[in-house]
Amino acid sequence: MERTPYTPPAFEPGHVWLCGAGPGDPGLLTLHALHALQSADVVVYDALVSDAVLGLAGPQATFEYAGKRGGRPSPKQADISLRLVQRAREGKRVLRLKGGDPFVFGRGGEEALSLVAAGVPFRIVPGVTAGIGGLAYAGIPVTHRDTNQAVTFVTGHDASGDVTGVDWAALAGGAPVLVIYMAMKHLATIAERLVAGGRHGDTPVAIVSNAALPDQRVLETTLARAPADAEGAGMAPPCVVVVGEVARLRAGLDWLGALTDGKVLVADPLGLGRERRTG
Amino acid sequence: MERTPYTPPAFEPGHVWLCGAGPGDPGLLTLHALHALQSADVVVYDALVSDAVLGLAGPQATFEYAGKRGGRPSPKQADISLRLVQRAREGKRVLRLKGGDPFVFGRGGEEALSLVAAGVPFRIVPGVTAGIGGLAYAGIPVTHRDTNQAVTFVTGHDASGDVTGVDWAALAGGAPVLVIYMAMKHLATIAERLVAGGRHGDTPVAIVSNAALPDQRVLETTLARAPADAEGAGMAPPCVVVVGEVARLRAGLDWLGALTDGKVLVADPLGLGRERRTG
Repeated sequence: MERTPYTPPAFEPGHVWLCGAGPGDPGLLTLHALHALQSADVVVYDALVSDAVLGLAGPQATFEYAGKRGGRPSPKQADISLRLVQRAREGKRVLRLKGGDPFVFGRGGEEALSLVAAGVPFRIVPGVTAGIGGLAYAGIPVTHRDTNQAVTFVTGHDASGDVTGVDWAALAGGAPVLVIYMAMKHLATIAERLVAGGRHGDTPVAIVSNAALPDQRVLETTLARAPADAEGAGMAPPCVVVVGEVARLRAGLDWLGALTDGKVLVADPLGLGRERRTG
Repeated sequence: MERTPYTPPAFEPGHVWLCGAGPGDPGLLTLHALHALQSADVVVYDALVSDAVLGLAGPQATFEYAGKRGGRPSPKQADISLRLVQRAREGKRVLRLKGGDPFVFGRGGEEALSLVAAGVPFRIVPGVTAGIGGLAYAGIPVTHRDTNQAVTFVTGHDASGDVTGVDWAALAGGAPVLVIYMAMKHLATIAERLVAGGRHGDTPVAIVSNAALPDQRVLETTLARAPADAEGAGMAPPCVVVVGEVARLRAGLDWLGALTDGKVLVADPLGLGRERRTG
Protein backbone atom coordinates (compact mmCIF):
# COMPACT_ATOMS: atom_id res chain seq x y z
CA MET A 1 0.00 0.00 0.00
CA GLU A 2 1.48 3.34 -1.06
CA ARG A 3 1.75 5.81 1.80
CA THR A 4 0.43 9.27 0.92
CA PRO A 5 0.13 12.12 3.40
CA TYR A 6 -3.11 14.03 3.95
CA THR A 7 -3.15 17.17 1.80
CA PRO A 8 -5.86 19.58 2.92
CA PRO A 9 -7.63 21.92 0.51
CA ALA A 10 -6.47 25.52 0.79
CA PHE A 11 -8.57 27.65 3.14
CA GLU A 12 -8.75 30.83 1.05
CA PRO A 13 -9.25 34.30 2.56
CA GLY A 14 -12.83 35.45 2.05
CA HIS A 15 -14.15 31.91 2.15
CA VAL A 16 -16.46 30.36 4.76
CA TRP A 17 -16.06 26.75 5.86
CA LEU A 18 -19.20 25.32 7.48
CA CYS A 19 -17.83 22.50 9.62
CA GLY A 20 -19.25 19.92 11.96
CA ALA A 21 -17.28 19.49 15.18
CA GLY A 22 -18.66 16.09 16.14
CA PRO A 23 -20.43 15.29 19.41
CA GLY A 24 -17.74 16.43 21.87
CA ASP A 25 -14.59 14.31 22.01
CA PRO A 26 -11.98 16.25 20.01
CA GLY A 27 -10.80 12.88 18.68
CA LEU A 28 -14.01 12.77 16.63
CA LEU A 29 -13.08 15.95 14.77
CA THR A 30 -12.29 15.34 11.10
CA LEU A 31 -8.93 16.15 9.53
CA HIS A 32 -10.58 18.85 7.41
CA ALA A 33 -12.13 20.43 10.50
CA LEU A 34 -8.80 20.40 12.35
CA HIS A 35 -7.14 21.99 9.34
CA ALA A 36 -9.87 24.64 9.33
CA LEU A 37 -9.35 25.35 13.03
CA GLN A 38 -5.62 25.68 12.53
CA SER A 39 -6.03 28.00 9.52
CA ALA A 40 -9.07 30.13 10.40
CA ASP A 41 -8.84 33.83 11.20
CA VAL A 42 -12.19 33.76 12.97
CA VAL A 43 -14.17 30.89 14.47
CA VAL A 44 -17.92 31.45 14.79
CA TYR A 45 -19.05 28.65 17.07
CA ASP A 46 -22.18 27.19 18.62
CA ALA A 47 -22.93 26.31 22.23
CA LEU A 48 -22.57 22.62 21.44
CA VAL A 49 -18.92 22.89 20.35
CA SER A 50 -16.75 21.68 23.23
CA ASP A 51 -13.88 23.71 24.71
CA ALA A 52 -11.55 20.82 23.94
CA VAL A 53 -12.36 21.24 20.24
CA LEU A 54 -11.97 25.04 20.29
CA GLY A 55 -8.63 24.57 22.05
CA LEU A 56 -7.23 23.04 18.87
CA ALA A 57 -7.48 26.37 17.01
CA GLY A 58 -4.37 28.09 15.73
CA PRO A 59 -2.89 31.01 17.69
CA GLN A 60 -4.18 33.54 15.13
CA ALA A 61 -7.83 32.58 15.52
CA THR A 62 -10.34 34.83 17.24
CA PHE A 63 -13.62 33.45 18.54
CA GLU A 64 -17.18 34.64 18.16
CA TYR A 65 -20.00 32.96 20.03
CA ALA A 66 -23.18 32.31 18.09
CA GLY A 67 -24.95 29.83 20.33
CA LYS A 68 -28.62 29.23 20.68
CA ARG A 69 -29.05 27.76 24.12
CA GLY A 70 -31.26 28.78 27.00
CA GLY A 71 -29.79 31.17 29.55
CA ARG A 72 -27.43 32.92 27.20
CA PRO A 73 -28.45 35.57 24.66
CA SER A 74 -29.38 33.88 21.38
CA PRO A 75 -28.39 35.63 18.17
CA LYS A 76 -31.03 35.36 15.49
CA GLN A 77 -30.25 33.15 12.52
CA ALA A 78 -30.28 36.15 10.18
CA ASP A 79 -27.72 37.92 12.38
CA ILE A 80 -25.42 34.89 12.34
CA SER A 81 -25.63 34.62 8.55
CA LEU A 82 -24.98 38.35 8.21
CA ARG A 83 -21.94 38.09 10.44
CA LEU A 84 -20.50 35.26 8.32
CA VAL A 85 -20.94 37.39 5.19
CA GLN A 86 -19.35 40.43 6.83
CA ARG A 87 -16.30 38.55 8.09
CA ALA A 88 -15.80 36.93 4.69
CA ARG A 89 -16.05 40.32 2.97
CA GLU A 90 -13.36 41.58 5.35
CA GLY A 91 -11.13 38.99 3.67
CA LYS A 92 -11.03 36.65 6.64
CA ARG A 93 -10.91 32.86 6.61
CA VAL A 94 -14.19 32.21 8.39
CA LEU A 95 -14.78 28.91 10.17
CA ARG A 96 -18.42 28.36 11.07
CA LEU A 97 -18.20 25.52 13.57
CA LYS A 98 -21.28 23.63 14.69
CA GLY A 99 -21.75 20.72 17.08
CA GLY A 100 -22.25 17.37 15.36
CA ASP A 101 -22.93 17.72 11.63
CA PRO A 102 -24.01 20.99 10.00
CA PHE A 103 -26.69 19.27 7.89
CA VAL A 104 -28.34 17.25 10.69
CA PHE A 105 -30.68 19.67 12.46
CA GLY A 106 -27.83 22.19 12.29
CA ARG A 107 -29.38 24.79 9.97
CA GLY A 108 -26.26 24.56 7.84
CA GLY A 109 -28.32 24.69 4.66
CA GLU A 110 -29.91 27.96 5.66
CA GLU A 111 -26.60 29.59 6.47
CA ALA A 112 -25.05 28.31 3.26
CA LEU A 113 -27.93 29.68 1.16
CA SER A 114 -27.36 33.09 2.78
CA LEU A 115 -23.75 32.86 1.62
CA VAL A 116 -24.93 31.98 -1.88
CA ALA A 117 -27.22 35.03 -1.88
CA ALA A 118 -24.26 37.21 -0.87
CA GLY A 119 -21.86 35.63 -3.36
CA VAL A 120 -19.53 34.31 -0.65
CA PRO A 121 -17.74 31.06 -1.58
CA PHE A 122 -18.01 28.23 0.93
CA ARG A 123 -17.21 24.60 1.70
CA ILE A 124 -19.22 22.11 3.74
CA VAL A 125 -17.27 19.80 6.05
CA PRO A 126 -19.51 17.05 7.44
CA GLY A 127 -19.01 15.88 11.00
CA VAL A 128 -19.95 12.95 13.22
CA THR A 129 -23.51 13.60 14.35
CA ALA A 130 -24.40 13.12 18.03
CA GLY A 131 -27.24 10.77 17.11
CA ILE A 132 -24.69 8.27 15.76
CA GLY A 133 -21.37 9.07 17.41
CA GLY A 134 -22.79 10.17 20.75
CA LEU A 135 -24.84 6.99 21.02
CA ALA A 136 -21.77 4.94 20.05
CA TYR A 137 -20.02 6.41 23.12
CA ALA A 138 -22.89 5.00 25.17
CA GLY A 139 -22.40 1.60 23.52
CA ILE A 140 -25.55 1.84 21.42
CA PRO A 141 -25.50 1.22 17.65
CA VAL A 142 -28.29 2.93 15.68
CA THR A 143 -28.61 -0.15 13.48
CA HIS A 144 -27.98 -3.80 14.31
CA ARG A 145 -28.75 -6.80 12.17
CA ASP A 146 -30.85 -8.53 14.81
CA THR A 147 -33.00 -5.50 15.61
CA ASN A 148 -33.51 -3.05 12.74
CA GLN A 149 -32.75 -2.22 9.12
CA ALA A 150 -33.97 1.35 9.42
CA VAL A 151 -33.56 4.24 11.84
CA THR A 152 -35.24 7.64 11.95
CA PHE A 153 -33.55 10.83 13.18
CA VAL A 154 -35.98 13.50 14.33
CA THR A 155 -35.84 16.74 16.26
CA GLY A 156 -37.98 17.10 19.38
CA HIS A 157 -38.77 20.70 18.65
CA ASP A 158 -38.19 23.23 15.92
CA ALA A 159 -36.49 26.59 16.32
CA SER A 160 -39.69 28.06 17.76
CA GLY A 161 -39.67 25.43 20.50
CA ASP A 162 -42.85 23.84 19.19
CA VAL A 163 -43.27 20.07 19.02
CA THR A 164 -46.23 19.98 16.66
CA GLY A 165 -44.46 20.10 13.30
CA VAL A 166 -43.62 16.40 13.48
CA ASP A 167 -46.12 13.60 12.81
CA TRP A 168 -45.11 11.41 15.72
CA ALA A 169 -47.80 8.82 15.04
CA ALA A 170 -46.44 8.31 11.53
CA LEU A 171 -42.89 7.98 12.86
CA ALA A 172 -44.10 5.52 15.49
CA GLY A 173 -45.30 3.30 12.65
CA GLY A 174 -42.12 3.72 10.62
CA ALA A 175 -38.52 2.72 11.39
CA PRO A 176 -38.12 0.46 14.46
CA VAL A 177 -35.52 2.79 16.01
CA LEU A 178 -35.99 6.52 16.64
CA VAL A 179 -33.15 8.86 17.55
CA ILE A 180 -34.51 12.12 18.94
CA TYR A 181 -32.45 15.31 19.11
CA MET A 182 -33.54 18.14 21.41
CA ALA A 183 -36.08 15.81 22.98
CA MET A 184 -36.00 16.90 26.62
CA LYS A 185 -38.29 19.94 26.49
CA HIS A 186 -41.21 17.94 25.15
CA LEU A 187 -40.23 14.42 26.26
CA ALA A 188 -43.55 13.66 27.97
CA THR A 189 -45.55 14.76 24.92
CA ILE A 190 -43.29 12.85 22.55
CA ALA A 191 -43.46 9.64 24.59
CA GLU A 192 -47.24 9.96 24.82
CA ARG A 193 -47.62 10.43 21.07
CA LEU A 194 -45.32 7.53 20.25
CA VAL A 195 -47.36 5.25 22.52
CA ALA A 196 -50.57 6.58 20.97
CA GLY A 197 -49.00 5.80 17.58
CA GLY A 198 -48.51 2.17 18.52
CA ARG A 199 -45.15 1.92 20.30
CA HIS A 200 -45.31 -0.21 23.41
CA GLY A 201 -44.63 1.56 26.71
CA ASP A 202 -42.05 -1.14 27.50
CA THR A 203 -39.91 -0.18 24.47
CA PRO A 204 -36.32 0.28 25.67
CA VAL A 205 -35.11 3.89 25.78
CA ALA A 206 -31.70 5.36 26.51
CA ILE A 207 -31.04 9.03 27.20
CA VAL A 208 -27.46 10.24 26.77
CA SER A 209 -26.46 13.67 28.05
CA ASN A 210 -23.15 15.36 27.20
CA ALA A 211 -22.41 12.52 24.82
CA ALA A 212 -18.73 11.84 24.09
CA LEU A 213 -17.66 14.33 26.77
CA PRO A 214 -15.98 13.55 30.09
CA ASP A 215 -19.27 14.19 31.94
CA GLN A 216 -21.35 11.93 29.69
CA ARG A 217 -24.32 10.34 31.51
CA VAL A 218 -26.56 7.55 30.29
CA LEU A 219 -30.04 6.75 31.62
CA GLU A 220 -31.59 3.42 30.66
CA THR A 221 -35.37 3.38 30.88
CA THR A 222 -38.50 2.64 28.86
CA LEU A 223 -40.81 4.76 26.75
CA ALA A 224 -43.49 4.86 29.45
CA ARG A 225 -41.08 5.66 32.26
CA ALA A 226 -38.72 7.98 30.36
CA PRO A 227 -40.22 11.37 31.31
CA ALA A 228 -40.37 10.63 35.05
CA ASP A 229 -37.03 8.82 35.12
CA ALA A 230 -35.31 11.64 33.24
CA GLU A 231 -36.67 14.19 35.66
CA GLY A 232 -35.75 12.04 38.66
CA ALA A 233 -32.20 11.60 37.39
CA GLY A 234 -31.86 15.29 36.53
CA MET A 235 -31.05 14.64 32.88
CA ALA A 236 -30.54 18.02 31.26
CA PRO A 237 -29.82 19.10 27.66
CA PRO A 238 -27.90 18.51 25.53
CA CYS A 239 -29.28 14.98 25.31
CA VAL A 240 -29.79 12.39 22.61
CA VAL A 241 -32.69 10.00 23.14
CA VAL A 242 -32.91 6.61 21.43
CA VAL A 243 -36.11 4.57 21.35
CA GLY A 244 -35.96 0.91 20.33
CA GLU A 245 -34.43 -2.49 20.94
CA VAL A 246 -30.92 -1.25 20.12
CA ALA A 247 -30.86 0.46 23.53
CA ARG A 248 -30.53 -3.03 25.08
CA LEU A 249 -27.24 -3.57 23.23
CA ARG A 250 -25.52 -1.23 25.66
CA ALA A 251 -25.17 -4.18 28.06
CA GLY A 252 -22.83 -5.77 25.51
CA LEU A 253 -21.31 -2.79 23.76
CA ASP A 254 -20.51 -0.20 26.44
CA TRP A 255 -16.83 -0.24 25.49
CA LEU A 256 -16.22 3.07 27.27
CA GLY A 257 -17.53 1.70 30.57
CA ALA A 258 -15.43 -1.44 30.08
CA LEU A 259 -12.25 0.51 29.31
CA THR A 260 -12.62 3.16 32.02
CA ASP A 261 -14.61 1.48 34.82
CA GLY A 262 -13.99 -2.21 34.24
CA LYS A 263 -17.65 -2.81 33.43
CA VAL A 264 -18.27 -6.44 32.51
CA LEU A 265 -19.94 -6.74 29.10
CA VAL A 266 -22.26 -9.56 28.08
CA ALA A 267 -21.86 -11.18 24.67
CA ASP A 268 -25.58 -11.78 24.14
CA PRO A 269 -27.36 -8.60 25.34
CA LEU A 270 -30.49 -9.38 23.32
CA GLY A 271 -30.81 -12.85 24.85
CA LEU A 272 -30.84 -14.61 21.49
CA GLY A 273 -29.17 -17.70 22.86
CA ARG A 274 -26.34 -19.68 21.36
CA GLU A 275 -27.82 -19.72 17.88
CA ARG A 276 -26.89 -16.16 16.90
CA ARG A 277 -26.63 -15.85 13.15
CA THR A 278 -23.04 -15.26 12.24
CA GLY A 279 -23.08 -15.87 8.48
CA MET B 1 -9.39 30.36 24.66
CA GLU B 2 -6.73 28.04 26.08
CA ARG B 3 -4.94 26.06 23.39
CA THR B 4 -4.64 22.36 24.19
CA PRO B 5 -3.23 19.77 21.79
CA TYR B 6 -5.09 16.60 20.83
CA THR B 7 -4.00 13.72 23.06
CA PRO B 8 -5.10 10.37 21.62
CA PRO B 9 -5.93 7.41 23.82
CA ALA B 10 -3.21 4.74 23.86
CA PHE B 11 -3.75 1.98 21.30
CA GLU B 12 -2.75 -1.02 23.45
CA PRO B 13 -1.39 -4.26 22.01
CA GLY B 14 -4.06 -6.94 22.02
CA HIS B 15 -6.86 -4.40 21.59
CA VAL B 16 -9.18 -3.98 18.60
CA TRP B 17 -10.32 -0.55 17.45
CA LEU B 18 -13.46 -0.67 15.33
CA CYS B 19 -13.25 2.54 13.33
CA GLY B 20 -15.33 4.26 10.71
CA ALA B 21 -13.31 5.67 7.81
CA GLY B 22 -15.95 8.09 6.53
CA PRO B 23 -17.37 8.12 3.01
CA GLY B 24 -14.13 8.42 1.02
CA ASP B 25 -12.32 11.76 1.28
CA PRO B 26 -9.44 11.15 3.72
CA GLY B 27 -10.14 14.64 5.08
CA LEU B 28 -13.30 13.18 6.62
CA LEU B 29 -11.33 10.72 8.71
CA THR B 30 -11.45 11.48 12.44
CA LEU B 31 -8.38 12.27 14.52
CA HIS B 32 -8.90 9.03 16.47
CA ALA B 33 -9.08 7.02 13.24
CA LEU B 34 -5.90 8.65 11.90
CA HIS B 35 -4.16 7.89 15.19
CA ALA B 36 -5.33 4.28 14.89
CA LEU B 37 -3.99 4.03 11.32
CA GLN B 38 -0.65 5.43 12.40
CA SER B 39 -0.40 3.06 15.39
CA ALA B 40 -1.96 -0.18 14.14
CA ASP B 41 0.05 -3.34 13.53
CA VAL B 42 -2.63 -4.77 11.27
CA VAL B 43 -5.47 -3.06 9.38
CA VAL B 44 -8.45 -5.27 8.53
CA TYR B 45 -10.38 -3.20 6.00
CA ASP B 46 -13.58 -3.28 3.95
CA ALA B 47 -14.07 -2.72 0.24
CA LEU B 48 -15.58 0.70 0.96
CA VAL B 49 -12.41 2.09 2.57
CA SER B 50 -10.63 4.27 0.02
CA ASP B 51 -6.97 3.83 -0.95
CA ALA B 52 -6.37 7.45 0.07
CA VAL B 53 -7.44 6.56 3.60
CA LEU B 54 -5.35 3.37 3.76
CA GLY B 55 -2.37 5.38 2.50
CA LEU B 56 -2.33 7.26 5.81
CA ALA B 57 -1.31 4.12 7.72
CA GLY B 58 2.04 3.96 9.51
CA PRO B 59 4.96 2.13 7.90
CA GLN B 60 4.59 -0.80 10.33
CA ALA B 61 1.02 -1.61 9.36
CA THR B 62 0.11 -4.69 7.38
CA PHE B 63 -3.20 -4.92 5.54
CA GLU B 64 -5.83 -7.63 5.43
CA TYR B 65 -8.79 -7.35 3.09
CA ALA B 66 -12.19 -8.29 4.51
CA GLY B 67 -14.51 -6.84 1.94
CA LYS B 68 -17.95 -7.97 1.01
CA ARG B 69 -18.47 -6.73 -2.52
CA GLY B 70 -19.50 -8.59 -5.62
CA GLY B 71 -16.75 -9.94 -7.85
CA ARG B 72 -14.23 -10.53 -5.11
CA PRO B 73 -14.31 -13.43 -2.65
CA SER B 74 -16.40 -12.44 0.38
CA PRO B 75 -15.21 -13.64 3.76
CA LYS B 76 -18.06 -14.69 6.03
CA GLN B 77 -18.82 -12.50 9.00
CA ALA B 78 -17.81 -15.26 11.41
CA ASP B 79 -14.43 -15.56 9.68
CA ILE B 80 -13.81 -11.83 9.95
CA SER B 81 -14.69 -11.83 13.65
CA LEU B 82 -12.46 -14.85 14.22
CA ARG B 83 -9.57 -13.14 12.46
CA LEU B 84 -9.93 -10.05 14.67
CA VAL B 85 -9.81 -12.25 17.77
CA GLN B 86 -6.78 -14.18 16.49
CA ARG B 87 -4.78 -11.07 15.65
CA ALA B 88 -5.60 -9.52 19.02
CA ARG B 89 -4.52 -12.69 20.81
CA GLU B 90 -1.24 -12.50 18.90
CA GLY B 91 -0.71 -9.24 20.81
CA LYS B 92 -1.24 -7.01 17.81
CA ARG B 93 -2.88 -3.60 17.72
CA VAL B 94 -5.79 -4.45 15.43
CA LEU B 95 -7.55 -1.74 13.47
CA ARG B 96 -10.86 -2.89 12.02
CA LEU B 97 -11.59 -0.16 9.46
CA LYS B 98 -15.00 0.14 7.83
CA GLY B 99 -16.37 2.59 5.31
CA GLY B 100 -18.61 5.27 6.81
CA ASP B 101 -19.60 4.53 10.40
CA PRO B 102 -19.30 1.06 11.98
CA PHE B 103 -22.76 1.29 13.59
CA VAL B 104 -24.70 2.44 10.49
CA PHE B 105 -25.37 -0.72 8.49
CA GLY B 106 -21.74 -1.65 9.18
CA ARG B 107 -22.24 -4.76 11.34
CA GLY B 108 -19.95 -3.19 13.90
CA GLY B 109 -22.17 -4.37 16.73
CA GLU B 110 -21.92 -7.98 15.62
CA GLU B 111 -18.14 -7.88 15.38
CA ALA B 112 -17.87 -6.14 18.75
CA LEU B 113 -20.06 -8.76 20.43
CA SER B 114 -17.77 -11.45 19.04
CA LEU B 115 -14.88 -9.64 20.71
CA VAL B 116 -16.84 -9.54 23.98
CA ALA B 117 -17.45 -13.28 23.74
CA ALA B 118 -13.71 -13.83 23.25
CA GLY B 119 -12.71 -11.44 26.02
CA VAL B 120 -10.87 -9.09 23.65
CA PRO B 121 -10.92 -5.42 24.71
CA PHE B 122 -12.09 -2.95 22.09
CA ARG B 123 -12.92 0.67 21.33
CA ILE B 124 -15.53 2.02 18.92
CA VAL B 125 -14.53 5.07 16.84
CA PRO B 126 -17.55 6.54 15.03
CA GLY B 127 -17.11 7.92 11.53
CA VAL B 128 -18.94 10.18 9.10
CA THR B 129 -21.60 8.01 7.48
CA ALA B 130 -22.05 8.18 3.71
CA GLY B 131 -25.75 8.93 4.09
CA ILE B 132 -24.88 12.26 5.71
CA GLY B 133 -21.34 13.15 4.61
CA GLY B 134 -21.59 11.64 1.14
CA LEU B 135 -24.80 13.53 0.44
CA ALA B 136 -23.19 16.72 1.78
CA TYR B 137 -20.52 16.33 -0.92
CA ALA B 138 -23.39 16.32 -3.43
CA GLY B 139 -24.75 19.52 -1.86
CA ILE B 140 -27.72 17.79 -0.23
CA PRO B 141 -28.54 18.22 3.47
CA VAL B 142 -30.47 15.35 5.05
CA THR B 143 -32.50 17.86 7.07
CA HIS B 144 -33.50 21.42 6.21
CA ARG B 145 -35.88 23.64 8.11
CA ASP B 146 -38.11 24.34 5.11
CA THR B 147 -38.49 20.68 4.11
CA ASN B 148 -38.24 18.16 6.97
CA GLN B 149 -37.73 17.65 10.68
CA ALA B 150 -37.12 13.93 10.35
CA VAL B 151 -35.07 11.64 8.10
CA THR B 152 -34.96 7.85 7.88
CA PHE B 153 -31.85 5.85 7.02
CA VAL B 154 -32.57 2.40 5.63
CA THR B 155 -30.66 -0.35 3.86
CA GLY B 156 -31.91 -1.52 0.47
CA HIS B 157 -31.07 -5.12 1.17
CA ASP B 158 -29.81 -7.19 4.05
CA ALA B 159 -26.72 -9.38 4.03
CA SER B 160 -28.64 -12.10 2.19
CA GLY B 161 -29.41 -9.64 -0.62
CA ASP B 162 -33.13 -9.74 0.15
CA VAL B 163 -35.26 -6.59 0.12
CA THR B 164 -38.24 -7.98 2.02
CA GLY B 165 -37.14 -7.39 5.62
CA VAL B 166 -38.07 -3.71 5.43
CA ASP B 167 -41.66 -2.40 5.62
CA TRP B 168 -41.32 0.13 2.80
CA ALA B 169 -44.97 1.17 2.98
CA ALA B 170 -44.55 2.13 6.64
CA LEU B 171 -41.38 4.09 5.85
CA ALA B 172 -43.18 5.82 2.97
CA GLY B 173 -45.68 7.14 5.51
CA GLY B 174 -43.01 8.15 8.02
CA ALA B 175 -40.19 10.69 7.76
CA PRO B 176 -40.39 13.00 4.70
CA VAL B 177 -36.83 12.18 3.65
CA LEU B 178 -35.44 8.68 3.10
CA VAL B 179 -31.75 7.93 2.70
CA ILE B 180 -31.22 4.47 1.26
CA TYR B 181 -27.93 2.58 1.51
CA MET B 182 -27.23 -0.33 -0.84
CA ALA B 183 -30.29 0.61 -2.86
CA MET B 184 -29.19 -0.18 -6.40
CA LYS B 185 -29.82 -3.94 -6.51
CA HIS B 186 -33.52 -3.54 -5.69
CA LEU B 187 -34.09 0.07 -6.76
CA ALA B 188 -37.09 -0.71 -8.97
CA THR B 189 -38.80 -2.71 -6.22
CA ILE B 190 -38.05 -0.07 -3.60
CA ALA B 191 -39.37 2.79 -5.77
CA GLU B 192 -42.49 0.79 -6.55
CA ARG B 193 -43.17 0.05 -2.88
CA LEU B 194 -42.61 3.65 -1.84
CA VAL B 195 -45.10 4.83 -4.46
CA ALA B 196 -47.54 2.10 -3.36
CA GLY B 197 -47.04 3.40 0.18
CA GLY B 198 -48.14 6.89 -0.80
CA ARG B 199 -45.04 8.70 -2.07
CA HIS B 200 -45.68 10.65 -5.26
CA GLY B 201 -43.77 9.51 -8.34
CA ASP B 202 -42.64 13.12 -8.83
CA THR B 203 -40.78 13.12 -5.49
CA PRO B 204 -37.23 14.40 -6.11
CA VAL B 205 -34.50 11.76 -5.92
CA ALA B 206 -30.73 12.03 -6.07
CA ILE B 207 -28.37 9.11 -6.52
CA VAL B 208 -24.74 9.66 -5.51
CA SER B 209 -22.11 7.12 -6.48
CA ASN B 210 -18.55 7.09 -5.10
CA ALA B 211 -19.58 9.87 -2.72
CA ALA B 212 -16.76 12.12 -1.49
CA LEU B 213 -14.28 10.50 -3.89
CA PRO B 214 -12.67 12.10 -6.95
CA ASP B 215 -14.99 10.10 -9.24
CA GLN B 216 -18.18 11.06 -7.42
CA ARG B 217 -21.23 11.18 -9.70
CA VAL B 218 -24.66 12.58 -8.95
CA LEU B 219 -27.87 11.75 -10.81
CA GLU B 220 -30.90 13.96 -10.21
CA THR B 221 -34.20 12.27 -11.01
CA THR B 222 -37.60 11.42 -9.49
CA LEU B 223 -38.96 8.41 -7.68
CA ALA B 224 -40.85 7.18 -10.75
CA ARG B 225 -37.95 7.68 -13.15
CA ALA B 226 -35.11 6.64 -10.83
CA PRO B 227 -34.72 2.98 -11.86
CA ALA B 228 -34.64 3.70 -15.62
CA ASP B 229 -32.52 6.85 -15.23
CA ALA B 230 -30.01 5.06 -13.02
CA GLU B 231 -29.68 2.26 -15.54
CA GLY B 232 -29.40 4.70 -18.43
CA ALA B 233 -26.68 6.66 -16.67
CA GLY B 234 -24.83 3.51 -15.66
CA MET B 235 -24.95 4.32 -11.95
CA ALA B 236 -23.19 1.48 -10.13
CA PRO B 237 -22.61 0.72 -6.44
CA PRO B 238 -21.51 2.05 -4.05
CA CYS B 239 -24.39 4.54 -4.16
CA VAL B 240 -26.41 6.52 -1.66
CA VAL B 241 -29.98 7.33 -2.71
CA VAL B 242 -31.98 10.18 -1.19
CA VAL B 243 -35.73 10.53 -1.64
CA GLY B 244 -37.43 13.81 -0.76
CA GLU B 245 -37.57 17.56 -1.26
CA VAL B 246 -34.04 18.02 0.12
CA ALA B 247 -32.69 16.66 -3.17
CA ARG B 248 -33.76 19.96 -4.78
CA LEU B 249 -31.42 21.90 -2.48
CA ARG B 250 -28.46 20.69 -4.55
CA ALA B 251 -29.15 23.56 -6.96
CA GLY B 252 -28.21 25.96 -4.15
CA LEU B 253 -25.78 23.93 -2.07
CA ASP B 254 -23.49 22.09 -4.52
CA TRP B 255 -20.42 23.79 -3.03
CA LEU B 256 -18.11 21.19 -4.59
CA GLY B 257 -19.40 21.93 -8.09
CA ALA B 258 -19.07 25.65 -7.40
CA LEU B 259 -15.50 25.35 -6.10
CA THR B 260 -14.22 22.94 -8.73
CA ASP B 261 -16.30 23.63 -11.86
CA GLY B 262 -17.53 27.16 -11.33
CA LYS B 263 -21.14 25.99 -11.09
CA VAL B 264 -23.49 28.88 -10.41
CA LEU B 265 -25.60 28.26 -7.32
CA VAL B 266 -29.06 29.67 -6.75
CA ALA B 267 -29.98 31.18 -3.39
CA ASP B 268 -33.58 29.97 -3.43
CA PRO B 269 -33.50 26.39 -4.76
CA LEU B 270 -36.92 25.57 -3.27
CA GLY B 271 -38.55 28.57 -4.97
CA LEU B 272 -39.89 29.97 -1.71
CA GLY B 273 -39.65 33.56 -2.92
CA ARG B 274 -38.28 36.53 -1.06
CA GLU B 275 -40.09 35.75 2.17
CA ARG B 276 -37.78 32.99 3.38
CA ARG B 277 -37.98 32.65 7.12
CA THR B 278 -34.73 33.78 8.61
CA GLY B 279 -35.66 34.19 12.31
